[in-house]
Amino acid sequence: MDLLKQKIIDEGQVLEGDILKIDSFLNHQIDPEMSYAMGREFVNIFSDVKVDKVLTIEASGIAIGLVTAYEFGVKMVFARKTKSLLLNDDSYTADAYSYTKQVTNHITVLKKFLTAGENILIVDDFLANGSAALALCSIAEQAGCKVVGIGIAVEKAFQDGEEKLKAAGYRVEPLARIKSLKGGRVTFVED
Amino acid sequence: MDLLKQKIIDEGQVLEGDILKIDSFLNHQIDPEMSYAMGREFVNIFSDVKVDKVLTIEASGIAIGLVTAYEFGVKMVFARKTKSLLLNDDSYTADAYSYTKQVTNHITVLKKFLTAGENILIVDDFLANGSAALALCSIAEQAGCKVVGIGIAVEKAFQDGEEKLKAAGYRVEPLARIKSLKGGRVTFVED
Repeated sequence: MDLLKQKIIDEGQVLEGDILKIDSFLNHQIDPEMSYAMGREFVNIFSDVKVDKVLTIEASGIAIGLVTAYEFGVKMVFARKTKSLLLNDDSYTADAYSYTKQVTNHITVLKKFLTAGENILIVDDFLANGSAALALCSIAEQAGCKVVGIGIAVEKAFQDGEEKLKAAGYRVEPLARIKSLKGGRVTFVED
Repeated sequence: MDLLKQKIIDEGQVLEGDILKIDSFLNHQIDPEMSYAMGREFVNIFSDVKVDKVLTIEASGIAIGLVTAYEFGVKMVFARKTKSLLLNDDSYTADAYSYTKQVTNHITVLKKFLTAGENILIVDDFLANGSAALALCSIAEQAGCKVVGIGIAVEKAFQDGEEKLKAAGYRVEPLARIKSLKGGRVTFVED
């Protein structure tokens, strides 16, 4: 998605530890034009599958997830992240290790918001080690749902997230694929 | 806003401690049609003021804030909530006591995303004791911005949030004003 790649070049900051900061339009300040463009692009890409619900994770998945769900005419659920897990029968849970923040989060969704048999499109802002996406897949499948695809805004293609997800049989569609952040410079995987 | 009031009657759950749960369309599962309708209603209500940016707070403010900002043609910033505050010069901060969760959160916004002189529209899902809204106002004003209004989806009018905000000179516009949750029943303040 050229618009997104250009935005990353113009506004992205590369930090030590292979971290790409795009908080001027995605992760803290949001450029709604970009969110809408990304959501619409996911709908375009996944127009060949039936989508009953969009599943994402707070907080940065919400904006893109909202537009995607609106354009598909379905509801959206955002998984909650907590540091401490109070086990209860009301929720599906899975763990996700955050590469950027170097913490393990417990991801939870109330059972009543996922119905067995639903076709779930997972949407998230970043794909690095695949941990968050795999946690969302696990939650969808614990509920007896089918994951029809995973839409990612920005993939760090030099990490193994996409590989893991594909090996597990999931369809992964990143809008921008980052080849390298070395030397503080963003380069993309060629289309 | 009749559509919102009807949705609250149909799907809201009243819990002990004067808590209204509307997690089926606002706080966990999101009904995008409702988010879009609420965002558009805020734009309608605040069409008489200049808005340079929308400021809200994670996570439940994001959906409504996004649509509001998109329709105004401006950017949106969502304040972060943390339990522990690492003081740093990069951010504006304020504290907010959550009535529902009974915890104090530190609310933060990176300084680079608020420019002195900007006209800020604050948007949030609930108004109870006014703590979150006041924290966002504080942050906007620390940045030298002007708060042109506060748009709230659901106000618990039997609590003193609106009173405090109006006493401080802010314009508050709730889409639904709850008169009472007694006996597990939702009643609204008459229009």
